[in-house]
Amino acid sequence: MNLIATDDRALHYGDGLFETLRFHRGRAALWDWHMERLVDGCHRLGLPAPAPEMLRREAEAAALPFVDAVVKILWSAGRGPRGYARPQPPRPHALIEAAALAPAPEGIAAGWCSVRLAIQPALAGIKHLNRLEQVLAAQECQAAGWQEGLMQDMDGGVVAATAGNLCACIEGRWLTPPVERCGIAGVGRRWWLERGALTMAPLTPTQVEHAEALAVINAVRGPRQVVALGDRRWPVDPGLGELARAWQDLHQA
Amino acid sequence: MNLIATDDRALHYGDGLFETLRFHRGRAALWDWHMERLVDGCHRLGLPAPAPEMLRREAEAAALPFVDAVVKILWSAGRGPRGYARPQPPRPHALIEAAALAPAPEGIAAGWCSVRLAIQPALAGIKHLNRLEQVLAAQECQAAGWQEGLMQDMDGGVVAATAGNLCACIEGRWLTPPVERCGIAGVGRRWWLERGALTMAPLTPTQVEHAEALAVINAVRGPRQVVALGDRRWPVDPGLGELARAWQDLHQA
Repeated sequence: MNLIATDDRALHYGDGLFETLRFHRGRAALWDWHMERLVDGCHRLGLPAPAPEMLRREAEAAALPFVDAVVKILWSAGRGPRGYARPQPPRPHALIEAAALAPAPEGIAAGWCSVRLAIQPALAGIKHLNRLEQVLAAQECQAAGWQEGLMQDMDGGVVAATAGNLCACIEGRWLTPPVERCGIAGVGRRWWLERGALTMAPLTPTQVEHAEALAVINAVRGPRQVVALGDRRWPVDPGLGELARAWQDLHQA
Repeated sequence: MNLIATDDRALHYGDGLFETLRFHRGRAALWDWHMERLVDGCHRLGLPAPAPEMLRREAEAAALPFVDAVVKILWSAGRGPRGYARPQPPRPHALIEAAALAPAPEGIAAGWCSVRLAIQPALAGIKHLNRLEQVLAAQECQAAGWQEGLMQDMDGGVVAATAGNLCACIEGRWLTPPVERCGIAGVGRRWWLERGALTMAPLTPTQVEHAEALAVINAVRGPRQVVALGDRRWPVDPGLGELARAWQDLHQA
């Protein structure tokens, strides 16, 4: 059992960030983008950023026993006395854990979560450790038997799935909501955006329910299709198969 | 050094709650109210609540070495595998830490924080572990040399101070904002409300800046007066002295 000190600020305040990466044979294809987001998160939270090469060596060592691994890097603000103010200078530290990538169903049964995402531009986009909204949403998913919950912001706009970004195919174009006010700027989402095949656009629940196809993408699983949402069912989409193959190629190159 | 397992959900997601209590000679005058809020938080987050008598014995034992102690009880959702969904059933656990109550200045120099509190009714009122907004606010306080930062919600309404509830005396009446949309329902605030000397009412920044007196109250320090906010200075308020004495009497009875 690995242990950390009980005065860690990640434990008391969620003061830190994380990245969840996919490794294949000890290498993460999207490593640089994960690091860019992590460093951006450090700037936003006022935390020193990790030394990238040391972090890479440790993560690669952790992933080495597995052909396909999920590696979680938790970047905590470090230990400190009681109180919201950090010690100066803060001494952040990394916690790295690897596991074999478990198989997951390709099609996702989803539902709408009743818990909404709060609008907070100061924390939007980054992958910080304050995740109670997602925890509450995951409880709803467990209770309803969904693999993913779809989440709206306080104004009713569609933001994301509980553990990935949501993309909707509308009139032949794949769209995903912006994440400036809430949500996470996913690395899988970035990969799809940079291929030029995904566009940022606000989405309403009605648009999502009437979409020609829906997909959830995250950096561990890649693009996966939503096959059920409420009473709606979708047949397997031709466009997503090509994208899923490109995702596989990226990781196994 | 006390240690916990690195797969604790409080560490990864802020999945849990806390209470910070004042003890005098091994006894917390407002113990029952702290437990009521903790149990309410458990219901709201879907967590099993602690056995109150066992928790009390452990907290009292921790406080015993000190005449006046601050005891922090952290109620974590417990260990679990990767992912937002909790193991079923969750196995929460308590982490209890005590320290001598350090002296603090009676008058508070405060300022307005630029970081806003997100509106999130699902988490409002309870003392959960997702505290990055307060961490960001505390950074602003450190940089500006304030003892407390005053925080607004996303709509501009006044909510609270970074580490306590804010009360403003306006036309002879002490007012404090409601906490149904964001903020924490403080135990010190409750004590003041139940004395009948404090009324819940929305407050604007302008009202706060023009108040006859301002105070911050929390369950560790009791009521303390704000003596400076921006260019504004307040003389010591007569009403607060009586309240501060009642607070002392409560704890030393």
